[in-house]
Amino acid sequence: MAGLTLGDTIPNLEAQSTHGKITLHDYIGDSWAIIFSHPGDFTPVCTTELGKMAACAQEFANRGLKLVGLSCDDVESHLEWIKDIEAYTPGAKVSFPIIADPKRELIKQLNMVDPEEKDSSGNPLPSRALHIVGPDKKVKLSFLYPASTGRNMDEVVRVLDSLHKAAKHKVATPANWKPGDPVVISPSVSTEDAKNMFPGGFKTLDLPSNKDYLRFTNV
Amino acid sequence: MAGLTLGDTIPNLEAQSTHGKITLHDYIGDSWAIIFSHPGDFTPVCTTELGKMAACAQEFANRGLKLVGLSCDDVESHLEWIKDIEAYTPGAKVSFPIIADPKRELIKQLNMVDPEEKDSSGNPLPSRALHIVGPDKKVKLSFLYPASTGRNMDEVVRVLDSLHKAAKHKVATPANWKPGDPVVISPSVSTEDAKNMFPGGFKTLDLPSNKDYLRFTNV
Repeated sequence: MAGLTLGDTIPNLEAQSTHGKITLHDYIGDSWAIIFSHPGDFTPVCTTELGKMAACAQEFANRGLKLVGLSCDDVESHLEWIKDIEAYTPGAKVSFPIIADPKRELIKQLNMVDPEEKDSSGNPLPSRALHIVGPDKKVKLSFLYPASTGRNMDEVVRVLDSLHKAAKHKVATPANWKPGDPVVISPSVSTEDAKNMFPGGFKTLDLPSNKDYLRFTNV
Repeated sequence: MAGLTLGDTIPNLEAQSTHGKITLHDYIGDSWAIIFSHPGDFTPVCTTELGKMAACAQEFANRGLKLVGLSCDDVESHLEWIKDIEAYTPGAKVSFPIIADPKRELIKQLNMVDPEEKDSSGNPLPSRALHIVGPDKKVKLSFLYPASTGRNMDEVVRVLDSLHKAAKHKVATPANWKPGDPVVISPSVSTEDAKNMFPGGFKTLDLPSNKDYLRFTNV
C-alpha cells in the first residue's frame, strides 16, 4: 500500500479528538511533533505505550514537542480508556489529544495501517506507526511497528535529540549514539570550515582509504 | 512518495552486490532478513552503522537472520569501503552482501529514498531505511531514519526478539520491553484458553474499566 513517507508533508487533516476538533497543521504550529497510532483502546500493549508516552510528556515538552495519538476507536472510548492508562502508570497524565478515526480515513493517509490486523468486523486496524514531524510539517523520521511489538520511548527520545542536534549544527549522530556522546561532522563541511565551526576541535580518524571523512567532535 | 510499507511483500529484485548477483527472495529463502540502506560509502555515520551491523553479525546469525545492505555506490566502491569499516570496528567482518543501486531503481521500490539528500549531481540518495522481512517475504517492521541519525542496533535486536516471541507464542511485548521481561497475552486469547496455553500462570492487572485485558506472563 502507498503511503506517507520520509520527507512528505503530512496532510492537514481535520479530526475529532479527546481535545475536541483539531486540524493537524494548526495543532503542530511552529513546533516539532510526534503523531503516533495504536491498534486499539483497552488492549494490553497500547495501554503500556500510552502510559510511557504520558510519563515522557515532560521530556517531550522540554524539547518543544507536541504529541498527538490516534486510533480507530471513538472519543468516548478514548476518554474511558485514559482512566486505565493513568491507573497503570501512576503519576502520568495523558495531557495530549488522541484522535478518533472510526472511518479509517486518516490511518490510510498517514501510512498507519497494519494489514495483518483486523477488528471483529473485518475492518483494518492501525499499526504502531510513529512519525516525527518538523516545524515545516514534513516527516523527518518514522517507526512502523506491528501490533505485537511495543515501541521503545527511550529510542524515540534518543532520535529526537539527534534530530535537534543535526538541525542546530552541521553534525550527525553515529550508530547507537546517546546524548553526551561525540557526534560526527557532516561530509558537506570542509576541513578548513570545520576548524572555524568547531573551535573546540575535532578528531579525524585514520582509515585505510586515507579519506578524512570520519571526524568526531562534541557540540 | 508512495512506497513499500508494513505488510507488503518485498519485490523480488535482482541486484549486483559485493557477493555477485543476488535475487532478494532467493537470498532470503526461508529465513528472516534485514534489508537496510545507507546514504553513501565513505561517509561518517554509515561507517559506524555498518561496523555495528558487522559486529552484531553473530547475534543476527543466532536468530537465523540474513542481512543485506544497499546504497547507490557501485560494487567496487563498496569493496574498498569495507576496508574502512573493518578497520574502524576491530574484529568485525562485513560478511553480508551490500547491493549496488547506481541507477536508483531499487531505492524507489524499497521506500529507501531520502528526499532531503542529493549527491553532487543532484541525484537522490538513500535514507537510513531498515526493513525486517519475515520468511513469507513480507515487511514486518520498518525504521525510516534520515541521513543525520544513525540507527541503534540494540533497538534492532530488541524488536527482532519481540517479533520472534510473537511468532512463536500468542503474546506481544509491552512498551520498552527487553528480552527477559514479562510479555503480555494477546487479546485474541480468552482467559480460559490462556490457562491452558500458559501453564506457568499469568497475572491480570486490575484496571478502572474492569476489563481483564492486561495479562502479563513469562515465555
